[in-house]
Amino acid sequence: MKPIDFLRRQTLVQEKLSTQDIDLLMIPPSINFFYLFEGYMQLSERLICGVIDKKDDSLLIAPSFEKENMQIQTTFDDVITWKEDEDPYTILKQEISYEPRRIALEPSTPFEVFSRIKKQFPTSEFVNGNSILNELRMIKNDAEMERMVQAAEHTAEGILKTLELIHEGQTELEILKLAQKQMTLLSGEMSWALVQIDDNSAVPHGKPSNKKLKKDSVILIDAGTSCEHYFADITVTSVHGTASDEFKKVYSIVEEANNAALEKSKAGVPAEEVDFAARVIIENAGYGQYFTHRLGHGLGLQVHEEPYIVKGNKEPLVAGNVHTDEPGIYLPDKFGVRIEDDVLVKEKSKRLVEFDRYLWK
Amino acid sequence: MKPIDFLRRQTLVQEKLSTQDIDLLMIPPSINFFYLFEGYMQLSERLICGVIDKKDDSLLIAPSFEKENMQIQTTFDDVITWKEDEDPYTILKQEISYEPRRIALEPSTPFEVFSRIKKQFPTSEFVNGNSILNELRMIKNDAEMERMVQAAEHTAEGILKTLELIHEGQTELEILKLAQKQMTLLSGEMSWALVQIDDNSAVPHGKPSNKKLKKDSVILIDAGTSCEHYFADITVTSVHGTASDEFKKVYSIVEEANNAALEKSKAGVPAEEVDFAARVIIENAGYGQYFTHRLGHGLGLQVHEEPYIVKGNKEPLVAGNVHTDEPGIYLPDKFGVRIEDDVLVKEKSKRLVEFDRYLWK
Repeated sequence: MKPIDFLRRQTLVQEKLSTQDIDLLMIPPSINFFYLFEGYMQLSERLICGVIDKKDDSLLIAPSFEKENMQIQTTFDDVITWKEDEDPYTILKQEISYEPRRIALEPSTPFEVFSRIKKQFPTSEFVNGNSILNELRMIKNDAEMERMVQAAEHTAEGILKTLELIHEGQTELEILKLAQKQMTLLSGEMSWALVQIDDNSAVPHGKPSNKKLKKDSVILIDAGTSCEHYFADITVTSVHGTASDEFKKVYSIVEEANNAALEKSKAGVPAEEVDFAARVIIENAGYGQYFTHRLGHGLGLQVHEEPYIVKGNKEPLVAGNVHTDEPGIYLPDKFGVRIEDDVLVKEKSKRLVEFDRYLWK
Repeated sequence: MKPIDFLRRQTLVQEKLSTQDIDLLMIPPSINFFYLFEGYMQLSERLICGVIDKKDDSLLIAPSFEKENMQIQTTFDDVITWKEDEDPYTILKQEISYEPRRIALEPSTPFEVFSRIKKQFPTSEFVNGNSILNELRMIKNDAEMERMVQAAEHTAEGILKTLELIHEGQTELEILKLAQKQMTLLSGEMSWALVQIDDNSAVPHGKPSNKKLKKDSVILIDAGTSCEHYFADITVTSVHGTASDEFKKVYSIVEEANNAALEKSKAGVPAEEVDFAARVIIENAGYGQYFTHRLGHGLGLQVHEEPYIVKGNKEPLVAGNVHTDEPGIYLPDKFGVRIEDDVLVKEKSKRLVEFDRYLWK
């Protein structure tokens, strides 16, 4: 696969900082930290923070006993360190040798970290670094697309394999573990899954339970694995045996909605119109009240990221966006059907992976 | 086990809000959300927020399609909901029918969420809810101690079982998975582990690698499992065969330091003095420069929480605190030894679990 150019991303952030008249972007460990500096690490109570300066070299501050780790895991050769009994925020302040007028913060920065940074820079204005980072992350380049296609392929294959292996009497939780295992066997990375059977499938985001698979059960699997931390997010709704007429009817409406959204998705179209394209089909079929969530969301290093495909988002899609297309109909106490694909936006958008979802009679 | 009284915790927060003249505490999904409202959920881009008012009933705002989930998973019967195309922050503002003078935020609240809340409450002062929450969480009651003891017992047993099962040729990553499995078999909950062999053990927090276990290798396992989300954190350093004289010498110094810290720990003693008690022993033995981190940290719903046992923390320990006692000596390119226990602070502090760590010749 093509390598990811992390230094290039740092340069692009510098350009955006200049344009937006922001002096610095501060980035504690987070998805955005990985995006910019390569290190994939957890936020902890010990301050680690990358800083991109619009005019100067980027810098990293970290605990002294983590210095070697940081040099191995991140793009930084030099690390500014602090000892266990020192205040890292004072040291951070000393390293930045001027009074920044505006500081952007990585959007997931904890309020507590923000408060402590603010104490050191009392005259600076703090702004949300969201737009700077999202504008970059929303548009996937070829190296990123390779990873996303592979994640989607492994996810689809893992879900289909799971549906092949399941049998009556297995619980949602057992099938969930099976699905995670099948995907991780393919990807070698972390996988997640939601599994819902029969009436449970009518509750989007419901917790997996000990409910058992029966003959002719409806089973909904919403799952994803990753490739170098780029995630897929695919939902297959199936029947373990013979589908009822009501299921078939609902399924075909959702399928039509999913296709209509794909058809609508392309560069230049406002995001909400892709939602409308699917919703009008479900509404016209009389099931509008049972499609209770937005059509989809962007996908990448996070399973949910911009652009959101939802009423009110009038931003036009851009070539290189990747978004889910996941209409659903949820009939309380009966069953739910959701069909979810991952879609790459281009002149004409296309699914990251195509596969046969008809596994029932 | 004794049940956890979540409603009581909410009342205690209300009392603290009154004392500190704060109108509201806002808590998005986080460890503190679980601590107060029982729901153990991930933060997502869709706003979920619990609000404790010093004078009024607590409230929860969540996406409408999650309402049923919230009623099942949290202490709330009523949920204020927002639809996919509505602005949850406007609805939150409407629900709070007055102008709060001071609002405390859960300390991990993302900067982005803070920014959007602030827009709705432009005249309010925002403060860090850290102290309110930590004062409660730092002192474990009997129900919490039952869970922490069980987590510690399962962790110690899992590590010892792992050391029994390993063999030459296995890698750090393989042993890490084995350790997680052994602990989870006992606890039925999530487990984590770090495994470091030979010179890798000299790098605290180093990433697990494909380095292989050999005859007479030093192996360091730092691991924990949980009981109803309360975590243990225990480190065992051992030798797979016969220990060198240098290892034995270093081990006995670290062991003496670990015992000295336990001896020092008790209600009323400033936290940093517990660190000093261990450090002076390692310094007097001539290894001071190789003990590169603080002695320990508090433990509970997070693996690292207050109180921190570190130079500069002059706060006295309080009965009910639980902290790690984890001195170490790290000899670059040779090996590291860390001995880590979990300690309950009382009139005379004691380890949550005692076990025999001498597995080598």
